[in-house]
Amino acid sequence: MSTIVQKFGGTSVGSIERIEQVADKVARFRADGHNIVVVVSAMSGETNRLIALANEIQDQPTPREMDVLVSTGEQVTTALLCMALHKRECEARSYNGGQVRILTDDAHTKARIREIDDDRMRADLDAGRVVVVAGFQGVDENGNITTLGRGGSDTTAVALAAALKADECQIYTDVDGVYTTDPRVVDSARRLDHITFEEMLEMASMGSKVLQIRAVEFAGKYNVPLRVLHSFQDGPGTLIRVEDQSDMETPTIAGIAFNRDEAKLTVMGVPDTPGVAYKILGPVGNANVEVDVILQNVGEDQSTDFTFTVHRNDLQRAEGIMTRVASELGAREIRTDAKIAKVSVVGVGMRSHAGVASKMFEALAESGINIQMITTSEIKISVIIDEKYLELAVRALHSAFELDVEPVEG
Amino acid sequence: MSTIVQKFGGTSVGSIERIEQVADKVARFRADGHNIVVVVSAMSGETNRLIALANEIQDQPTPREMDVLVSTGEQVTTALLCMALHKRECEARSYNGGQVRILTDDAHTKARIREIDDDRMRADLDAGRVVVVAGFQGVDENGNITTLGRGGSDTTAVALAAALKADECQIYTDVDGVYTTDPRVVDSARRLDHITFEEMLEMASMGSKVLQIRAVEFAGKYNVPLRVLHSFQDGPGTLIRVEDQSDMETPTIAGIAFNRDEAKLTVMGVPDTPGVAYKILGPVGNANVEVDVILQNVGEDQSTDFTFTVHRNDLQRAEGIMTRVASELGAREIRTDAKIAKVSVVGVGMRSHAGVASKMFEALAESGINIQMITTSEIKISVIIDEKYLELAVRALHSAFELDVEPVEG
Repeated sequence: MSTIVQKFGGTSVGSIERIEQVADKVARFRADGHNIVVVVSAMSGETNRLIALANEIQDQPTPREMDVLVSTGEQVTTALLCMALHKRECEARSYNGGQVRILTDDAHTKARIREIDDDRMRADLDAGRVVVVAGFQGVDENGNITTLGRGGSDTTAVALAAALKADECQIYTDVDGVYTTDPRVVDSARRLDHITFEEMLEMASMGSKVLQIRAVEFAGKYNVPLRVLHSFQDGPGTLIRVEDQSDMETPTIAGIAFNRDEAKLTVMGVPDTPGVAYKILGPVGNANVEVDVILQNVGEDQSTDFTFTVHRNDLQRAEGIMTRVASELGAREIRTDAKIAKVSVVGVGMRSHAGVASKMFEALAESGINIQMITTSEIKISVIIDEKYLELAVRALHSAFELDVEPVEG
Repeated sequence: MSTIVQKFGGTSVGSIERIEQVADKVARFRADGHNIVVVVSAMSGETNRLIALANEIQDQPTPREMDVLVSTGEQVTTALLCMALHKRECEARSYNGGQVRILTDDAHTKARIREIDDDRMRADLDAGRVVVVAGFQGVDENGNITTLGRGGSDTTAVALAAALKADECQIYTDVDGVYTTDPRVVDSARRLDHITFEEMLEMASMGSKVLQIRAVEFAGKYNVPLRVLHSFQDGPGTLIRVEDQSDMETPTIAGIAFNRDEAKLTVMGVPDTPGVAYKILGPVGNANVEVDVILQNVGEDQSTDFTFTVHRNDLQRAEGIMTRVASELGAREIRTDAKIAKVSVVGVGMRSHAGVASKMFEALAESGINIQMITTSEIKISVIIDEKYLELAVRALHSAFELDVEPVEG
């Protein structure tokens, strides 16, 4: 008998009909003899409805009161799901974040979980009941209602799974798993049976919106096996877990991630002296512009070029800041390019396989794609290329790394 | 500086515009230096919306889950009202029933309040904050969410006022006070400046839907001065309080209550033996039919007639039961009459004034109205008459007891 935490997001519980479908699924798992804890979001549209009510009164309501307001959305779903389970003669009890008790800090609207008391859930599970918990919320030590921020229900699910030492945390979504790359770009993109936490983080941060990054980090930290599944289609989904040693010989690359939301800024001819990077990026950070890739190559003649990428929506703002900074620094000029794309090859296996980079560059060269920038991390190699070559690059890499071929498990 | 508990019902907070108006009123009281605790209901329509969602799943959802579901309605209002107060630079904090902490028994959907912990509210009041509490809800000793049943927000307000030893509990409604009788029937009906708890109970049980009976009883028990006011019109309203000795010489009669929702059943010729009343009313009670007036006069020839009234909607059901009972008892026949009305003269003063009954009967006789039945209590005399004479009777009595004349305070 396993203990499983299952999380259903707003779309999966977006109508009574869908809540009934979720109840079918949960009741089936329970009938199979598993201990089940379900985490639910607000019905889709409900959180926005509540925020709209608040904004009729104030543009910037107090965070404390926003939390009191929006936390009702998930509570409604917990009650409705329990009713649907009761209808299926499946015993169930609903709890809000404060009741289970998910203790958080007092950072309203973006609280972090500190501690979970699993006594109450444990007692219900022991009595054979399904426990249904409102996602996204908790209480601070003074009993004030807090929320974890949008999408925090994934985090709730992982935290409950960690507290209960659950065998698996299942995140039900509108996709049937994590793919080697976006199936809309590569027809032969393949669902992965498993992927490591680190790979998932790299894939997620590149725009795969399957899972909240924070939830993946959390799951990795507490070693909670995380499975991504489709809410209304049957299938094994993708299991996210720690690296399995027996897989060392299996494929080095998990997938190809990409992002076309970025823009590039280059400050040409800046003095190659200590503190320059800070003088450039400090003002950008202060303006709350998020920076992704940062690149500074070896300079010559006491001068260097400094390049970074920002979200395309922030380009104009970043350029304004840079123009000011450049004149202060005595830099030669600013060049910007919004028509870029980032393509990354992700895989824990590349740690031990030096050939990944050369295979990547070879594949791009064969397709006649010029690489503008390269950055690497432990398990990822990213290149910045002209946006128009994005699809071509992704397909070439997917094929070069034979991602369309099902690996033979060792 | 007084401590005042103010309660606003669903209609008073039925839209953002109305919530803003309520905030104006509350902020004004606060600016006058009073300690203010506000109790709010769900926005009108919200509770029904939630119940409709539940009923899409189940006709009879578990009471525990119904409470989890519907209690969100009041919580939403508390947050929105706090935002509206903040907008007016009036410090305020919202709490749900479990947070303040309103401890109830575990009778879900109809819980009774056991105890209130006023520490938290007291701390906020001392810090100059308005405390906004979700009405109608609490928690049982295991932390499960409970509700007090529909209209329970009045009870919450009175209970908080009692716990805080508030100077006054103000119930804001869609009427500007309690009247000597229904102004739609008697043009000269007059708003009462004050009325006793007992009189209010008799007036309320006759169909004046201004206040929940349970809240009035509660207020009387804990001696909480209760004031009925209009939500959006200024005015003193009506103060409900314990009998004031100095008023002993002022009018004996507070008002004329009436009810045309009742129907009369008479079982003729039942054996005048012990246990007959139980044999007749037992089956009626078992069928959950509520009985109002019960009347059995002295019998003759070992036989008597037994009459009672029920809500008109229950007449058919009650008649069915009676037909069976009558044949078991060997009663002669059943007579029913749906075209009746009950008119009552209510006033604590009548305890010490024997002449009230004779003045009442005289006034009815002068108007040519036949009295079908008479029942009396300590502070009320009720007569059952033909429905068609109702308005005539109410006007005759209102005038006979000079209720249109403002009393001179002693």
